[in-house]
Amino acid sequence: MIPNMKRHLLFLVVFLVGLGAQQVIADDGYRLWLRYDQISDNARLQQYRLAFQEVVLAGDSETSRVTGREIQKGLSGLLGKEIPVKSELSGNRSLIIGTPSDSEIISSLNLDKKLTSVGDEGFLIEQHRVQGNDHVVIAANTDVGALYGTFHLLRLMKTHEEVQHISIASAPKIQHRVLNHWDNLDRTVERGYAGLSLWEWKTLPNYEDPRYTDYARANASLGINGTVINNVNADPRMLTEQYIKKAAKLADIFRPYGIKIYFSANFFAPSRVGGLENSDPLNPDVQQWWKDKADQIYKHIPDFGGFLVKANSEGQPGPQNYGRSHAEGANVLAEAVAPHGGIVMWRAFVYSPEQEDRFREGYDEFVPLDGQFADNVILQVKNGPIDFQPREPFHPLFGTLPETNTMLELQITQEYFGFSLHLAYMGPLYKEALSADTYAKGEGSTVARVIDGEVFDYEHTGIAGVANTGRDRNWTGHPFGQSNWYLFGRLAWDHTQTAEGLADEWIRMTFTHDPDFVEPVKEMMMMSREAGVRYRNPLGLTHLYAQGHHYGPAPWTSDLPRPDWTAVYYHRADDEGIGFDRTESGSNAIEQYAPEVRDQFDEMGDTPLEYLLWFHHVPWDYQLSTGRTLWQELVHRYYQGVEDVREMREKWASVEGLIDKGRYRHVEALLEIQEEAALWWRNACVLYFQQFAGEPIPEEYEKPEHSLEYYKELEKTHHIARF
Amino acid sequence: MIPNMKRHLLFLVVFLVGLGAQQVIADDGYRLWLRYDQISDNARLQQYRLAFQEVVLAGDSETSRVTGREIQKGLSGLLGKEIPVKSELSGNRSLIIGTPSDSEIISSLNLDKKLTSVGDEGFLIEQHRVQGNDHVVIAANTDVGALYGTFHLLRLMKTHEEVQHISIASAPKIQHRVLNHWDNLDRTVERGYAGLSLWEWKTLPNYEDPRYTDYARANASLGINGTVINNVNADPRMLTEQYIKKAAKLADIFRPYGIKIYFSANFFAPSRVGGLENSDPLNPDVQQWWKDKADQIYKHIPDFGGFLVKANSEGQPGPQNYGRSHAEGANVLAEAVAPHGGIVMWRAFVYSPEQEDRFREGYDEFVPLDGQFADNVILQVKNGPIDFQPREPFHPLFGTLPETNTMLELQITQEYFGFSLHLAYMGPLYKEALSADTYAKGEGSTVARVIDGEVFDYEHTGIAGVANTGRDRNWTGHPFGQSNWYLFGRLAWDHTQTAEGLADEWIRMTFTHDPDFVEPVKEMMMMSREAGVRYRNPLGLTHLYAQGHHYGPAPWTSDLPRPDWTAVYYHRADDEGIGFDRTESGSNAIEQYAPEVRDQFDEMGDTPLEYLLWFHHVPWDYQLSTGRTLWQELVHRYYQGVEDVREMREKWASVEGLIDKGRYRHVEALLEIQEEAALWWRNACVLYFQQFAGEPIPEEYEKPEHSLEYYKELEKTHHIARF
Repeated sequence: MIPNMKRHLLFLVVFLVGLGAQQVIADDGYRLWLRYDQISDNARLQQYRLAFQEVVLAGDSETSRVTGREIQKGLSGLLGKEIPVKSELSGNRSLIIGTPSDSEIISSLNLDKKLTSVGDEGFLIEQHRVQGNDHVVIAANTDVGALYGTFHLLRLMKTHEEVQHISIASAPKIQHRVLNHWDNLDRTVERGYAGLSLWEWKTLPNYEDPRYTDYARANASLGINGTVINNVNADPRMLTEQYIKKAAKLADIFRPYGIKIYFSANFFAPSRVGGLENSDPLNPDVQQWWKDKADQIYKHIPDFGGFLVKANSEGQPGPQNYGRSHAEGANVLAEAVAPHGGIVMWRAFVYSPEQEDRFREGYDEFVPLDGQFADNVILQVKNGPIDFQPREPFHPLFGTLPETNTMLELQITQEYFGFSLHLAYMGPLYKEALSADTYAKGEGSTVARVIDGEVFDYEHTGIAGVANTGRDRNWTGHPFGQSNWYLFGRLAWDHTQTAEGLADEWIRMTFTHDPDFVEPVKEMMMMSREAGVRYRNPLGLTHLYAQGHHYGPAPWTSDLPRPDWTAVYYHRADDEGIGFDRTESGSNAIEQYAPEVRDQFDEMGDTPLEYLLWFHHVPWDYQLSTGRTLWQELVHRYYQGVEDVREMREKWASVEGLIDKGRYRHVEALLEIQEEAALWWRNACVLYFQQFAGEPIPEEYEKPEHSLEYYKELEKTHHIARF
Repeated sequence: MIPNMKRHLLFLVVFLVGLGAQQVIADDGYRLWLRYDQISDNARLQQYRLAFQEVVLAGDSETSRVTGREIQKGLSGLLGKEIPVKSELSGNRSLIIGTPSDSEIISSLNLDKKLTSVGDEGFLIEQHRVQGNDHVVIAANTDVGALYGTFHLLRLMKTHEEVQHISIASAPKIQHRVLNHWDNLDRTVERGYAGLSLWEWKTLPNYEDPRYTDYARANASLGINGTVINNVNADPRMLTEQYIKKAAKLADIFRPYGIKIYFSANFFAPSRVGGLENSDPLNPDVQQWWKDKADQIYKHIPDFGGFLVKANSEGQPGPQNYGRSHAEGANVLAEAVAPHGGIVMWRAFVYSPEQEDRFREGYDEFVPLDGQFADNVILQVKNGPIDFQPREPFHPLFGTLPETNTMLELQITQEYFGFSLHLAYMGPLYKEALSADTYAKGEGSTVARVIDGEVFDYEHTGIAGVANTGRDRNWTGHPFGQSNWYLFGRLAWDHTQTAEGLADEWIRMTFTHDPDFVEPVKEMMMMSREAGVRYRNPLGLTHLYAQGHHYGPAPWTSDLPRPDWTAVYYHRADDEGIGFDRTESGSNAIEQYAPEVRDQFDEMGDTPLEYLLWFHHVPWDYQLSTGRTLWQELVHRYYQGVEDVREMREKWASVEGLIDKGRYRHVEALLEIQEEAALWWRNACVLYFQQFAGEPIPEEYEKPEHSLEYYKELEKTHHIARF
């Protein structure tokens, strides 16, 4: 026995070294939620090992091969043993994956009706008796559907769900589920806080960085099926053949994962890189140029998705430069890609300095154009009327464009939420936006049902998320930034899921199943968005940010090239009170909403407190339902925001030791930074508004550490690195 | 036995999974040359296991703890078993590490004389009989010396060197061995091609990224003892307390590894961030400001190294803005840091558009100031008189400043060598620069012996390397970029080492010991620099680059704000010939060299061909020693450069399968890109110069693929991403 023992020990040592190495990988966050370490719950492990002794995979498309690689890697890791992938059924407890056309077994199960109901991208996961034994079957109409089903099963296993007698039918509610990368050709990322762009243009198309594949895997695991790879403030060179060829390589890598590539297009490309006199959409040469350009792109990228355009917005060129309408401009590009099955996503984010209320402008600009856009154009509308603020009422364009495909644009990168330095789980924000009721066709006409096409029966439906990814090893800088990428993808597939449920999934897949970790961390995530609202813009205040960087507070900002870039434009604080009157007595922006929505906002007394200052100029001594005056409530909420962050820090401190040291320390340090910022916001804003309120900060609150002058100075001297 | 067998198999599976995981780490290049995988040579492995059964480490300083962690990690990995680190000797074959003051064993060995000879940073590695047994001893006068010795022993083991009867004494020949990071505060890196800056300013000082420690380990393993963390084109905000505090955290992390932090200082900081009227070095307020600033810095960073200054160069401010000399400017900063033991590294890289020959300017500016600089100032001089070109004659300031500490600045980042896209091992270039003979005090007065202080007995000696590191996972973008970081550090410690020997070391530590890999790859590295010279600037041509990015060719560049930024200024091609006459009949720059050097260059016929066009305007039909006319030789070398790259590709192709796929494919793709660039250079330059030579491209050569106009156009349309 002795030599045996020795060998045992040797194995043991090497095994531990091995685990050590694995640990390193496990901790740097690179694997995101796709970690295939052995299942920790032993009962589940045994059950899964029993249920999945082999994989039977039909089809030999590139996508099938991708599915095979993923399920082999996934099962072998989760079950801690090699699971064979075969083309023929031989075992008596197998996982069978395929489509009726590729797999005789699946075609024999008479799933046609069910499969029809899940469409091209959906899938079924069911237990079936085949050749006298029970097997789990993943069936779909397409290979991509089967891939989605495979990722879904792996997620169920990673979250230790029951798979006995499993019966799942799933299909996406929205067609175009797209990431928007604000990535420049020099690889800097606008509002990107996680390193340089993922796309290493210098080495494309020659070098296929393995990271491109892992990016595709991560998106496919959520059902994201499109990616706009360059900044909406678009460099026209993106449309030159040099870059089209580079992008074609990315498209080749993404294709098997069901992901299409889109370009942001500069509307002046015909004159800037095409050598034409102008870029007037009614100029036949310009129209021909876009057609030829589309043909060239599709020659290199046969499944090219189409264009995203930011036109006549923040200095970007557009059809209005030639006195043409947005519809006239969009339709030229739409016509160019239509023969190839492409679409144009046209951003509704427009505002001009002349307007007296920026809130109104998207609606005033686009509602008159309803019905004038080509069928393959989708209007891309941000969740709120201003610009991704911590809280906004829903955009009045949702529910008011019956004849215009309308999609929702959410921001995943935390431009107004503390960059990659603050923990801010977007679940509550996204759900708030999706479940807002437009009453377009009576109660229940939620934004979600508008963009999934139910309310107006749109030809194309879509949802876009401005990505927070970069070359940082963990993809998103803040370890919890990953949760917002995950959240976006999962909600894009099915917006009926809850923020809390998705947080729970993500935590278990990303960290651990230990309830002592999961519960406090879930609470921390769920409270984080409201905390961010409170220490920055409580009670419906908005856009109090220092310009340029949108990190620190500058409610005093008053002289900028455009009034609607200043803070005073938004808060309108004076000796009487504070807030932007958007009722009839003011800009009357509320008239853009359905009567039922208007009724929620037009009376100061009835307006929900979180939206109060969005719609009313409220006296400082106005008595609120909370029993406090407006001034007291404002102070209370700013202080509450800081307390929230302190509570988040306590919750995180309580989980020390339950996960790897690396990620624990990282988040710990970032929460420290977040509290500093929360204090900065609270003190700067309370001291600034106090000048107008002329009231003291109530006794019970700690005094701001410095004077208002100090914080004004800090805005100038405190340097926030862009990257 | 059966259950035992089962357990064996289980261990085996997990072990393989573990190895798999390890492999992933091994392949991404993050570990650089510090890979501690088990020794592959079994004889050596057994020998080392026998020799190092335990480590006995004296001292409990932070540096000793670092040494303990490194040797434990290193030995355990290399030997494939845990090696204990103890404070007392107990085994009979041990590794004993320490200083005479901390270790009774070491003080008992009477090494005082030997130790005195290796100084503060040097070390001894010797076998000694202690308590009746043979042990290997690493002895030094300081804990940092012991750390260097520890890294040296680990390197010997990683290169499978004999350690029986080992007897090594090593000490650095140069005092200040410093990396220069051209990193901006927004984290972009000037001439950096490996991602964003390593310094994540946004999360400092709160978050200690583990990467900072790995950076320190890598440098300490080579003996690099200083780092200038910000760009010489210096943002004055680096000197504000906000950034001093952030940098102090880095200094705390680097300190145990013997690495000091330096700042690049903006000469106008007193007026730009100090609130002073001006930054005139003779203004007492300015002098006081620098003193106070130094005191503030040393309060946060007690071992702060000092300042690096780029003054009155390429738009940077300096003393000449106030009519003061470089010496007057440098001495003010020197006086401020002197009480704290700091130094000032003052760059000699100055040139003004007025001058008729940029080659002369550094010499003309600084030689008259010799003797005027404070003792703690070191003049930092680039290897050549222009700017890090693929080949330059040595800078005339070497050997002509007997009274001024003079250090050498080399460029590790490949600004003129194809960025991180081309393979260019700098060994031959650095050695060429170091071994150039200035004849300052007769034959053998090499640049190396000037900068190590032997020739003039300088008070301070130093060498700087402009870093090529960034946040790319593998640190340097191109996997072979790591070799130049390694090379710089090893030569800084001991400039007598050979380029080939260091390439051999690096290959074995970074990839494999397989001779079928090592030999062809070493040949590829050794030929790579000359290849880069040939396809860009053969025969002593220089600076034919497109401006802005220095990647592609633009020998036709003629109209730029400054003549000495154009290409025609350097090559002077006309119908008669080509080249810059720097003899007496021309700018007479050669008069700046010692007579023995002048004699090598003043006669067209005697000048070595690789320097010919640096010093002579040579007729196109001039007959060269090669039997070819100048035109024929020029064409020949351009074509040879491309052939060299093709040969490098063949050598790399021959090693496929001998290392991990990931790094193999990466280098394969980059070599493909390099050949494209070499062809671009060759064709553009040959076609351009042909206009003047009026001769055909000899029959035997393949015709350029496109016309000269095409390549001129390409310079404008081909976009090279900065990052």
